[in-house]
Amino acid sequence: MKIADFRIHPIAIADPPLRSSYGLHAPYALRTIVELISDDLVVGISETYGGEAQVKQLEALRDQIIGANPYRLTGFLSGMVDGATGNCDRSQTWHVPGENPLDATTRTFAAIEVACLDLIGKTVGQPVCDLIGGRVRSEVPFSAYPFYKHAGGGGEGSDARDDEYGEALSPEAIVAQVRQMVAKHGFGSIKFKAGVLDPEIEIETIKQLHRALGPNVPLRIDPNSAWTVETSVRVGKALAEELGRGGYLEDPTAGIENMAAVRKRLLAEGIDTPLATNVAVTCFADIPRAVALDAVQIILCDHHYWGGMRQVQHLARLAKTFGIGLSMHSNSHLGISLMAMAHCAAATGHLTYACDTHYPWAHEQDEVVRGGRVPITNGCVKIADKPGLGVELDYDQLARGKERYKNCKYRKRDDEAEMRKHVDPGWKRVLPRW
Amino acid sequence: MKIADFRIHPIAIADPPLRSSYGLHAPYALRTIVELISDDLVVGISETYGGEAQVKQLEALRDQIIGANPYRLTGFLSGMVDGATGNCDRSQTWHVPGENPLDATTRTFAAIEVACLDLIGKTVGQPVCDLIGGRVRSEVPFSAYPFYKHAGGGGEGSDARDDEYGEALSPEAIVAQVRQMVAKHGFGSIKFKAGVLDPEIEIETIKQLHRALGPNVPLRIDPNSAWTVETSVRVGKALAEELGRGGYLEDPTAGIENMAAVRKRLLAEGIDTPLATNVAVTCFADIPRAVALDAVQIILCDHHYWGGMRQVQHLARLAKTFGIGLSMHSNSHLGISLMAMAHCAAATGHLTYACDTHYPWAHEQDEVVRGGRVPITNGCVKIADKPGLGVELDYDQLARGKERYKNCKYRKRDDEAEMRKHVDPGWKRVLPRW
Repeated sequence: MKIADFRIHPIAIADPPLRSSYGLHAPYALRTIVELISDDLVVGISETYGGEAQVKQLEALRDQIIGANPYRLTGFLSGMVDGATGNCDRSQTWHVPGENPLDATTRTFAAIEVACLDLIGKTVGQPVCDLIGGRVRSEVPFSAYPFYKHAGGGGEGSDARDDEYGEALSPEAIVAQVRQMVAKHGFGSIKFKAGVLDPEIEIETIKQLHRALGPNVPLRIDPNSAWTVETSVRVGKALAEELGRGGYLEDPTAGIENMAAVRKRLLAEGIDTPLATNVAVTCFADIPRAVALDAVQIILCDHHYWGGMRQVQHLARLAKTFGIGLSMHSNSHLGISLMAMAHCAAATGHLTYACDTHYPWAHEQDEVVRGGRVPITNGCVKIADKPGLGVELDYDQLARGKERYKNCKYRKRDDEAEMRKHVDPGWKRVLPRW
Repeated sequence: MKIADFRIHPIAIADPPLRSSYGLHAPYALRTIVELISDDLVVGISETYGGEAQVKQLEALRDQIIGANPYRLTGFLSGMVDGATGNCDRSQTWHVPGENPLDATTRTFAAIEVACLDLIGKTVGQPVCDLIGGRVRSEVPFSAYPFYKHAGGGGEGSDARDDEYGEALSPEAIVAQVRQMVAKHGFGSIKFKAGVLDPEIEIETIKQLHRALGPNVPLRIDPNSAWTVETSVRVGKALAEELGRGGYLEDPTAGIENMAAVRKRLLAEGIDTPLATNVAVTCFADIPRAVALDAVQIILCDHHYWGGMRQVQHLARLAKTFGIGLSMHSNSHLGISLMAMAHCAAATGHLTYACDTHYPWAHEQDEVVRGGRVPITNGCVKIADKPGLGVELDYDQLARGKERYKNCKYRKRDDEAEMRKHVDPGWKRVLPRW
């Protein structure tokens, strides 16, 4: 079996005006869909970050991909999984996911790895999770992912979408948003994107969520490095009683040293709420220092930028070895990424928390998966008894996504620029903000 | 595809009277050959440690194996790869490989994993290394493995074997043994099993080897924990100038704390010869302490007892992350294990040293691989362009191996008992001995 064709499809999907410490989501999120077509005309697919740079990085591999055996290609390209070295930490603090040059090679490798696995799975009739060691679960739990947001459902002009969830810039509105998401998808845990309003309002938001949902729904709060050590400790203390079982405090402050300081001070106050991260630790090179300083107790993996599913499995074993929990990071995405995340999670024993997903924020209208959106039921994605990732491309929908990409002016993600354009012309990302 | 049959074949193979700090090799080494036969009548094979306990542990899985999909079986059994917890360190210090109850489940899992991978590879027409991420090399380097030994080639009575290498109980005889091995197999590095004679004689052995082979042949010395910290430092210093590039000092002393003490004292003397181990660190649970104390700079992996090929890949990533080198451990084995080791090594990027192998000590007469012994040429095993492990069973030879097992009285490995029987009736393993 050889790879006879390699297609790269840049697409844009409508994205609601979600807020985070990075700024504001643009009306369109960019994604890239990859197809690897074998000489038997089987098609393997994957989905990754979008925009011009990502397309170029994939395109640069064309000569190595065409004619390759998909079983061997990942070995051949394996130098890419080591990623760049250097000051990973600072870089990820200041880059939104998908725009960090230090993970350009791991991101690009992952898109190829997943498409190879899908191609192999579809060729031999086996689900991807069973190609990489075998599933340890067939239902993968995801969290509701509430965001502060402005009014609007994403898209622009005549392409603007319905605003399913409405504006949410208060604790009460977040509670309503979560109730709506939970009613629709049955989520059993909540990951709350903070770092947007004054910490006191965000503490109040968590408290209201906790009261609304009861003590058995794990709550996680993620301000994306917006706080000082001082504020992080203050919030940590305020939340200690409110956080449900299984909750965590994610990236309250920037950098491994500051995370370690927060941990130390919370422990000194008898508070052992674990600190999670997908900012302070985003590659293997970050781990030794994080372990030495006990800076993080949970790592959010993401096959998209950690170098693929097998690297996530390596990370899981490493995390387990050092007593670190594992959760999963998400970015605006469609059903191909959702299924890749689910297969990766299904074959990763040491995944100790429900995964994040932005999927409820995407629109049916933009889905490129044949048959429409992948269901999230009882908070879980089911691994269907289908080969590969279990999903195939809807080429009409793909064509619409490409058209949308062509027509929109976005070629990279820049949440700061969107803030200036839509909310505050003088806005700058300042860390720490509080 | 389902597994329709599961066959467990205990065999015995002639083993020369090799010496180590554990004692003396018995005239027969015990191995177990596993067959998984699919409903399409494809046969997947593997080889692991031998004897009664190993057969029982495999047999206990029968109900879970029959009827299973080989792609899913490893996920289903994945709880076994975590192994036992507890005082791994002390245990491995006192148990020969294959007789450590703490790795009973990881050993047993690995035998099943490898047979599943061989079955899958033979079904889809792909080599095993390309099923687990893809090869990063197609030729895997192994080391010559000289041992002090008594006269004899192994086997008993009318089944006694020719003594290809002869007695070797002096530095000169080890040099001759190595020359003979290198001439036959082209090895480019040497792993010398020490811990048998007085350290001064072993230092002299290394010096003579170094002079005989030149400065570019990496030399490793492994006394299997026979020395005190004091002696380890003394030997380390004496060898510092003699050890060729890429050499290491393996398990000079018992336990992570003592290894750390040796490392610290050598560094204080300006000697940074890395310390390697397959005794102080034999499972993931051992690693955090070893890292915290900088006790080991090289880990010898072994898919047979670390829980299979994928766990070795996890270990490799972990080792790379923490700046630890990786080599590969060996035990008396035949061609199936050799090919499994080679495939595992071929698909493991961070394998920074040539692998150990006892294969030159085994006899053609005992090989169960169809077509006879796997060649080691220029010190390397080639990954052939053949599906699975690239080898198949010779059932006549297998029957002879089973007959040999039935006729010999050995049911577990006990090197101390062999020492008492053949060398010194009062011999006891004492650690540290020097």
